[in-house]
Amino acid sequence: MSSYRAPMQEMRFVMNELAGLEQVGKLPGYEDATPDTVAAILEEASKFATEVLDPLNAVGDREGATWQEGGKVKTATGFKDAYRRFAENGWNGLTKNPEHGGQGLPQLVATAVEEMWHGANMAFALCPLLTQGAIEALELCGSDKLKATFLPKMVEGVWTGTMNLTEPQAGSDLAAVRTRAVPSDKPGAYKLYGQKIFITYGEQDYTDNIIHLVLARTPTAPEGVKGISLFLVPKFMVNDDGSLGVRNDVHCVSIEHKLGIHASPTAVLAYGDHGGAVGYLVGEENRGLEYMFIMMNLARFSVGIEGVGIAERSYQRARDYARDRVQGRAPGLDKTVPTATILQHPDVRRMLLTMKAQTEATRSLAYVTGAAIDNARRHPDADARKRHQAFVELMIPIVKGWGTEIAQEVTYLGVQVHGGMGFIEETGAAQDYRDARITTIYEGTTAIQANDLIGRKTARDGGVVARSVIGEIVGLATALSADANGALVPIGNELQSAAAALKSAVDWVVPAYGKASRAAHAASVPYLRLWGLVAGGWQLARGAQVAARLLAENKGDATFYRGKIATARFYAECLLPQAAALARAITLGSESVLALSDEQF
Amino acid sequence: MSSYRAPMQEMRFVMNELAGLEQVGKLPGYEDATPDTVAAILEEASKFATEVLDPLNAVGDREGATWQEGGKVKTATGFKDAYRRFAENGWNGLTKNPEHGGQGLPQLVATAVEEMWHGANMAFALCPLLTQGAIEALELCGSDKLKATFLPKMVEGVWTGTMNLTEPQAGSDLAAVRTRAVPSDKPGAYKLYGQKIFITYGEQDYTDNIIHLVLARTPTAPEGVKGISLFLVPKFMVNDDGSLGVRNDVHCVSIEHKLGIHASPTAVLAYGDHGGAVGYLVGEENRGLEYMFIMMNLARFSVGIEGVGIAERSYQRARDYARDRVQGRAPGLDKTVPTATILQHPDVRRMLLTMKAQTEATRSLAYVTGAAIDNARRHPDADARKRHQAFVELMIPIVKGWGTEIAQEVTYLGVQVHGGMGFIEETGAAQDYRDARITTIYEGTTAIQANDLIGRKTARDGGVVARSVIGEIVGLATALSADANGALVPIGNELQSAAAALKSAVDWVVPAYGKASRAAHAASVPYLRLWGLVAGGWQLARGAQVAARLLAENKGDATFYRGKIATARFYAECLLPQAAALARAITLGSESVLALSDEQF
Repeated sequence: MSSYRAPMQEMRFVMNELAGLEQVGKLPGYEDATPDTVAAILEEASKFATEVLDPLNAVGDREGATWQEGGKVKTATGFKDAYRRFAENGWNGLTKNPEHGGQGLPQLVATAVEEMWHGANMAFALCPLLTQGAIEALELCGSDKLKATFLPKMVEGVWTGTMNLTEPQAGSDLAAVRTRAVPSDKPGAYKLYGQKIFITYGEQDYTDNIIHLVLARTPTAPEGVKGISLFLVPKFMVNDDGSLGVRNDVHCVSIEHKLGIHASPTAVLAYGDHGGAVGYLVGEENRGLEYMFIMMNLARFSVGIEGVGIAERSYQRARDYARDRVQGRAPGLDKTVPTATILQHPDVRRMLLTMKAQTEATRSLAYVTGAAIDNARRHPDADARKRHQAFVELMIPIVKGWGTEIAQEVTYLGVQVHGGMGFIEETGAAQDYRDARITTIYEGTTAIQANDLIGRKTARDGGVVARSVIGEIVGLATALSADANGALVPIGNELQSAAAALKSAVDWVVPAYGKASRAAHAASVPYLRLWGLVAGGWQLARGAQVAARLLAENKGDATFYRGKIATARFYAECLLPQAAALARAITLGSESVLALSDEQF
Repeated sequence: MSSYRAPMQEMRFVMNELAGLEQVGKLPGYEDATPDTVAAILEEASKFATEVLDPLNAVGDREGATWQEGGKVKTATGFKDAYRRFAENGWNGLTKNPEHGGQGLPQLVATAVEEMWHGANMAFALCPLLTQGAIEALELCGSDKLKATFLPKMVEGVWTGTMNLTEPQAGSDLAAVRTRAVPSDKPGAYKLYGQKIFITYGEQDYTDNIIHLVLARTPTAPEGVKGISLFLVPKFMVNDDGSLGVRNDVHCVSIEHKLGIHASPTAVLAYGDHGGAVGYLVGEENRGLEYMFIMMNLARFSVGIEGVGIAERSYQRARDYARDRVQGRAPGLDKTVPTATILQHPDVRRMLLTMKAQTEATRSLAYVTGAAIDNARRHPDADARKRHQAFVELMIPIVKGWGTEIAQEVTYLGVQVHGGMGFIEETGAAQDYRDARITTIYEGTTAIQANDLIGRKTARDGGVVARSVIGEIVGLATALSADANGALVPIGNELQSAAAALKSAVDWVVPAYGKASRAAHAASVPYLRLWGLVAGGWQLARGAQVAARLLAENKGDATFYRGKIATARFYAECLLPQAAALARAITLGSESVLALSDEQF
């Protein structure tokens, strides 16, 4: 079985040439992110991913996490030790504030590192992903006391964090949250009662304590989303000296039996069955949803990267198999050669190139967005921060929604390249396919991302930000269409048509959202896919332009650069034509989505 | 959890209005297939599917088949009994020759019935599917003695049949088959030595005997595919009086641990480890591949129907969940209603309608092809038989290749509609998704179907049959575009464009296959998808035309007919635009698929 290796050359190319690592490293506060430091971090992360996390991936799938009498959860063999090493090596606090023990590195660097964790072992990597979100919320909204008590241990990774949103009756609709938080005798402390489901790493045996961030309602809270507050509920109470106190009244009553990510325990948590779980209000009452969105935004971005990581894993496995497996005579090749590896078969090449091109497109878009997050936080110029922030907000639903949908297609092809062996669990391709399946669901389904994209991100400003990004795409396409390098011309031409299709969709969505919002919602997922398709093609086209320049300057690895151009051209000619089809479905067909009555289904 | 119910109204509509059941029932030999008889058969099959097979589907997934010491296989609880009832009720011999105990019914009827078996329990239905293929091969190529000894029991279902093609080094490439067949002392009998893998129901506990049809090479056989012969190898020898004799030397050494269809044992069979497995030559030496293709063709068609069945199952489950699950406020609806079922959410409607439209499209195409099989066999006019046969040959790779690819999309959406619950195994949507995954792989991967489609089915006759079918599609599209019923006009218009795109692809494929076959092969799967997309749209458009006529005549269920028109329009406006994108990828991008060197992957 092939093992995961971080695609270092590709990652460096995207970071340096597309995401502007050099510029990011010059932002105030990021001066430590020198090229040498970043290179060393990536090397170390890559080693850890391949040597420690990857070998546990299949074990975790086979054994899974198991619930035990008394509400304990046993994780699969090797995971606890791997987590200890992960935390000891300081990986948990990569981007976190040095004040709380973090390393304060740019999001761009963390993005590449996170991709490695997800590529090597998605079920493992979910634990730090969720802890990260909890840290984020505490850093931004927690009181000084809460920060001092909890943040250092969480940043160090000695305690993990969780996000508790969902309840049986409250999935995508958080307005329906019913968990109650009643003020207790102790000032600032509440008692929580209720049940939360789908809590990733809601219980585990990695660490002595778990810090739950929980959405709940106080007795005086208004109805709906405006009455939700955020609470911190530790599994064990923490004494003033930082030592652990009594067990809090939050218990894992079961874990789910899932399609994939078996090693990641998905817990049902009962709050307050034995008198009330002690919780502390984070920030102000009734502003919980707002805070949750802060951490959710980064979690969504991370799930997009998860999509990239699992797609890369699937691609590597399929490519390695195609290089080894000898089967049949490849059409159109030398007939004296009796058999060939399946890599020589045109349709296997088509599948692999589709996997590769789409994975590179999602990666490029994610890293570019990662750099924009850094600029939105740290750029010295306020206008620039605002501009970058607007770009980030537009892109997050796309990186999450489209990136994870692409992961489905890629892991699907990953199975297909293996033929019959792909259906056999021991091969591993099926695990990638199963693991990937959750990514379009959690942290907001694709439809939830798409709702965000048509509403808050497109229609709210009348399409201004959307059109300005399209303007950039058209600018690049125009330049490439007129490039002296003939290889870039078809890329420019196809990107031109695709950008025009995207623009027509924006022109339709903005007014449609205003007046007939059901049709706009019916078009939302195709609209999200259209954005991803075109923005991904844009990033690959940018890469091709850089590669052509470096080739002309005779710099670096010519084979790699030619590959970048060929991959971008394939994407442009074979995938970008879908843009016109999506735009037509959006602008012409959205009413027909809604034409059936309930009983006609 | 929802239970599977055969979509009787839809099945009847497709059989009667699109596939021409009445005409088929008038073909010589099919006179017994009167409307009343067919209606009674469908009712009984539907009952058996819902009452006997469906309740075992989840059990089969959970327990799976298990290999036991001594090479026995234990199937899941209830399966053996269900199989006994299946055979006793005569379902195994539905289309088989009455001479051997079959009922001699048309393929069209069997197609609908088979869809029910696959929809209710795919892992169960594989056993009769494979037996069917073995019967077919014996009926067409076996000696009178072999037929007399084996056929009646197989048709009755007292013994089952298998197809043994694959070996570890011979997957899609049967030229690499190495199993040896050495003439024995007994005339007509051989001894077989070798290993076969991926043998569906290669071992089971349903029946006392299993009849394996096995590809192997005789000592004097030429190299490659021209040296393969077909042998019948019974698990137990059969005495002259029909009683079972000694155990033959074919043994199940293990079964696979698979992504899905857990209840269907996938066996590794060892032939001749203890002196040689006795086998009988079927037909003539070295013509095995040809015979295998005879049974393979029907097996491929059946796997296409499997795709329809599992898609229908997935659709029903998602629709029922969407009707029950209350979550959030649906955009654009009455704001005084605090919550709605998710069926009211526009994107859920889009997903369900995509599932429904695509399932109906694949069903219609499969049933129409089923009727053409009947006409190709039994039409009194030789020219008509030839015409129908040409249509069948063009359609089989499309029904199989496209029908099963659509099953992936549909079961994918089936999970997505369930949100987080879709990822939980107990819901069942994940099982549909896993079970469906094999269908694009076995009986020839999608690429194998696509190779067949571009070569033997398109290029070999210079595109004559392909263009004649497109001519029919254009004829319908033209009529609809000019129809007085305004609802049909957009369907006609979109179908017109899609047919033009398909024609441009045929015009490209025919010469490309001749001169630069690697590019043609690189385009083959998109070409297959394009064919499926347009042919499916054609059948839905035909259905819409009929529905409009029946509405105008005030006949039947107006709600249903309006649904047919609305579904066809959705397909035309939201899905058919992809035709132009696929055609562009084929005609413009096929060279770019092949532009990467091996090391650039």
